[in-house]
Amino acid sequence: MSWEETLDYYGVLIDEEVKKFFAEAKKAAKAYHPFIGEVYSNVEEFVLRKGKKLASCSTLLTYEGYAGKIDNRILKACVSIELYRHCILVHDDLVDKDTQRRGGKTFHRLVAENYDDRLGYGTGVFVGDLMYALTLQAILNSGFSQEKLNRVMLLLLEGYRNVNESQILDLLFEYKEPDVDEWCVMASKRAASLFETTIFVGGILGNAPEGDLQILREAARHVGYSFDIQDDIIDTFASLEQYGRPSGGDVALGKKPLHIIYSFKLAGRDALNKLKNLTSKEHISPHDLESIRAIVRESGALEAAKKKAKEHAEKAKTLIARTSLSDETKKFFASMITYIKESLDWYR
Amino acid sequence: MSWEETLDYYGVLIDEEVKKFFAEAKKAAKAYHPFIGEVYSNVEEFVLRKGKKLASCSTLLTYEGYAGKIDNRILKACVSIELYRHCILVHDDLVDKDTQRRGGKTFHRLVAENYDDRLGYGTGVFVGDLMYALTLQAILNSGFSQEKLNRVMLLLLEGYRNVNESQILDLLFEYKEPDVDEWCVMASKRAASLFETTIFVGGILGNAPEGDLQILREAARHVGYSFDIQDDIIDTFASLEQYGRPSGGDVALGKKPLHIIYSFKLAGRDALNKLKNLTSKEHISPHDLESIRAIVRESGALEAAKKKAKEHAEKAKTLIARTSLSDETKKFFASMITYIKESLDWYR
Repeated sequence: MSWEETLDYYGVLIDEEVKKFFAEAKKAAKAYHPFIGEVYSNVEEFVLRKGKKLASCSTLLTYEGYAGKIDNRILKACVSIELYRHCILVHDDLVDKDTQRRGGKTFHRLVAENYDDRLGYGTGVFVGDLMYALTLQAILNSGFSQEKLNRVMLLLLEGYRNVNESQILDLLFEYKEPDVDEWCVMASKRAASLFETTIFVGGILGNAPEGDLQILREAARHVGYSFDIQDDIIDTFASLEQYGRPSGGDVALGKKPLHIIYSFKLAGRDALNKLKNLTSKEHISPHDLESIRAIVRESGALEAAKKKAKEHAEKAKTLIARTSLSDETKKFFASMITYIKESLDWYR
Repeated sequence: MSWEETLDYYGVLIDEEVKKFFAEAKKAAKAYHPFIGEVYSNVEEFVLRKGKKLASCSTLLTYEGYAGKIDNRILKACVSIELYRHCILVHDDLVDKDTQRRGGKTFHRLVAENYDDRLGYGTGVFVGDLMYALTLQAILNSGFSQEKLNRVMLLLLEGYRNVNESQILDLLFEYKEPDVDEWCVMASKRAASLFETTIFVGGILGNAPEGDLQILREAARHVGYSFDIQDDIIDTFASLEQYGRPSGGDVALGKKPLHIIYSFKLAGRDALNKLKNLTSKEHISPHDLESIRAIVRESGALEAAKKKAKEHAEKAKTLIARTSLSDETKKFFASMITYIKESLDWYR
């Protein structure tokens, strides 16, 4: 199977398990109150939206790479990983006031458009919370041994704490000019932490040797950095067609992705002044965004960010090759990393 | 010891343990980034604010009532309960746009006043999240047997899910007119769920007989209903002196506490029309609030709500007397319930 076929194949299995999970959860929610039943239906639709499922497929393939097979327990664990990823997205979208997510409305907008901003916003806060509780309930009901569940639980707690700490820093950076090192500190608990959690969970549940777990942890962190840098480049450089929504959202909020931080360092004086003026504007027009892109490109910052993403990707690849994962899983990760690397070149 | 002395005495012990917990947590947070260190200091200050600690003292006294003593493990579990209660408050205050909490600023306002609304609001979302992760980390590090921790973990997950579901309904009620039954459905997962969790946790950790656990669960739910009704009456009827902040916040948001729902049922036609006009106003003046109070009083709704709160309190008292809790703990709960009942009469 090609990488995309693998993702599709396992994605379908995970979706089936997500539906089973929500069949139960929706029943209880409806019994409590019809509106809460509706909310759970919305959550299910949100989680099931088309997408690559890199996080839960990483868990699944890591597990298979050690256990030699997949079973019902790991599919249930993948439901937990999907819930985990999406509970983070609900609060992320809310704070960043995003309106679109993977071809649909963001969660708080779904509710807001049926009622008003207040109910959308409040429901978004509380739904993100209860989705995290669902995450942990799902993993505890996966059927793995208590010993493994204890380790995985600690990872999901540490991971959630990490992601939320990095989210606060990411916000803070709208108010200051971090340098590359400070950006790396922030990012160490963002996608790096997410991939670390998802791959580590698969390794623990699949009985990976302890030595491998440490290598996987390191590799996952490199994948995360690489993914993070790429994700931010997409937000500034993707066309409407590529992105499915207008790009430039991060810059409009005053966020400081790595390619902007590099621009602050690399741009000449005039370009730097222009960039600072543009990024601090209340409203950034399509023309402003084009000017920002030009500065990021021409200062060499875009290339510097891509280079850093590629270095992390290479390191991840080398590390994964050193594990005793099955050849099929190694191939999967190699393809995923190649995909991240190559896709960097789609944005210029 | 009187009830107040008991609360003070144990409150000091719990505070000491909270400080120990944060000494560690702040160290790690500071090492990640100075701003996150600051955030954790704010969280500590928020959790340590003066207050009755009814939730964690209920856990502690229930434990003592079965185990015959308190020890370091239960104090650590109480830190978890305090974090649990406060992570719920952070998101509650955020969604309700409250500015004051127990003699200080609400968490999001603490940050907002040093930066701006956006950072305050976003940090509030993410801090509530990470405080829940801290809640579960604290209980897992309490030193109790894995078997007990597993049961307690399930309670804290179910409880958090419940509270967040009821919060959504409470918001929805701003957009509709629930009847008494619907209010009870909502409230069944609010304070009733919180007291159920805290008392049940104490019972499980203290080795309460299974039969007692079921009675405690029921009793705790009645305490919760009683507390909830009282808490809402305070928000409408307390003076500035009694409340430490202006009252009327719930009504201004269009919330539907039980005494308002009873008014809709009991008020005559003219009073009802007046009440509907007043509660749907964009801005409620002190004079409007006085008129609302008069209608709630004169329709008999205030008495009806108080009567219901007292009935729940009585049921809780009777149930607790049937358990094999120590006399000291029974006395503690009896005093707590009497306090809730008697305090109802402070608000007219």
